[in-house]
Amino acid sequence: MSETLNNNDSAESRLRDLGIQLPEPGSPFGAYVEAVQTGNLLFLSGMLPTEGHSPKFVGKLGKDLTLEQGRSALTLAAMNALAVAREHLGTLDRVTRVIRLGVYLAATDDFKEHPKVADAASELFRDVFGSGKTSVRQVIGVSTLPFGMPVELEVIFEVEG
Amino acid sequence: MSETLNNNDSAESRLRDLGIQLPEPGSPFGAYVEAVQTGNLLFLSGMLPTEGHSPKFVGKLGKDLTLEQGRSALTLAAMNALAVAREHLGTLDRVTRVIRLGVYLAATDDFKEHPKVADAASELFRDVFGSGKTSVRQVIGVSTLPFGMPVELEVIFEVEG
Amino acid sequence: MSETLNNNDSAESRLRDLGIQLPEPGSPFGAYVEAVQTGNLLFLSGMLPTEGHSPKFVGKLGKDLTLEQGRSALTLAAMNALAVAREHLGTLDRVTRVIRLGVYLAATDDFKEHPKVADAASELFRDVFGSGKTSVRQVIGVSTLPFGMPVELEVIFEVEG
Repeated sequence: MSETLNNNDSAESRLRDLGIQLPEPGSPFGAYVEAVQTGNLLFLSGMLPTEGHSPKFVGKLGKDLTLEQGRSALTLAAMNALAVAREHLGTLDRVTRVIRLGVYLAATDDFKEHPKVADAASELFRDVFGSGKTSVRQVIGVSTLPFGMPVELEVIFEVEG
Repeated sequence: MSETLNNNDSAESRLRDLGIQLPEPGSPFGAYVEAVQTGNLLFLSGMLPTEGHSPKFVGKLGKDLTLEQGRSALTLAAMNALAVAREHLGTLDRVTRVIRLGVYLAATDDFKEHPKVADAASELFRDVFGSGKTSVRQVIGVSTLPFGMPVELEVIFEVEG
Repeated sequence: MSETLNNNDSAESRLRDLGIQLPEPGSPFGAYVEAVQTGNLLFLSGMLPTEGHSPKFVGKLGKDLTLEQGRSALTLAAMNALAVAREHLGTLDRVTRVIRLGVYLAATDDFKEHPKVADAASELFRDVFGSGKTSVRQVIGVSTLPFGMPVELEVIFEVEG
């Protein structure tokens, strides 16, 4: 989809053009907050594939969930990240760059397809913010994530001062 | 306890009011340092549940250690983090915000209670710095941590320039 | 080796003195970039022990690979990090500090020697940048890494504005 979008379009207008409706921003599962800004950096908590504070996906990649389901779970976590960022900033148009994605996959011991799953988040962010704002990325396979969910996504945005 | 504390109290006076005595700051287990400041950000190395350079807790959550023991281990790691930050800054009153906690739990494959353990660190920091300085948080379950310890805590503080 | 080097030598001259030839900078395995700079911070993607976009090491520490092989794999990932940083900055002499190393080791459930493996990266960076620029460090044992590789290295550099 991204090919049809102009790099100069704003993130909010891209979201509209893509027909994406963000969910309600989530709330924390403990004594932390969802977003903290320091200077031009906006740090987000580890985002999970939840809907309305409930896990929408549970299980491990390579066993309980297919690659495609893992990608859907990560897309949901990325949508939750966008919702939290918009709530904090007022508008996603204040994002000047996606700095870093940390992608954590609960997977079996022989899982190898980390980049294909992680791309689900990277591709959504590319479509929303434009390919000129693409982030660095860290992806690892872990043994467990909160409440048995299969993916977790950490984001650092650069934002207008 | 935090309810009885004033958000404007300094971190050092809160520590005194809470009756908390910080341990001696730890030393690295290799060719790294415990704290690095860049601009207004103070990065800490992964803090472990050690006393005097020795592991105080060993084993995995969900098998060798109960949830409550995991919380005690993480509280100890958080106390070590405060000790390192104070050594670097001179006083914890120079902390203007806790930006990010990264919580790593060595746990069995069916462990699900990550937020309850991670809250042990978040609650200590809330009590010391006040609820207005609460951080974002990342928590994942990993297969192993250095020397077989059950928890590791990474911290980024925002500090006075 | 570091003892014979002057802390004031530049990183590029140290590399020459050490006889180190950096590899070609790698390319991403998905929809991300290898390096992003924001202000004085240069974030790198998780670097892998690859040569020419192919895994050079595969398997798990404690089972398929010895400690020494793990160190060799991490040294290769660290060389790839230096190559990417130089490509982004033009010269490694613009690095003013190594801020943080994140070391991720795919290892068996009884692996405990995380610091010894992680030191392979820390020692290379100390030799190249000098001991006065040593970073904080996070090291964890994970279940899997992309394409079955045994190590992954995340780096944040502080650079000239």
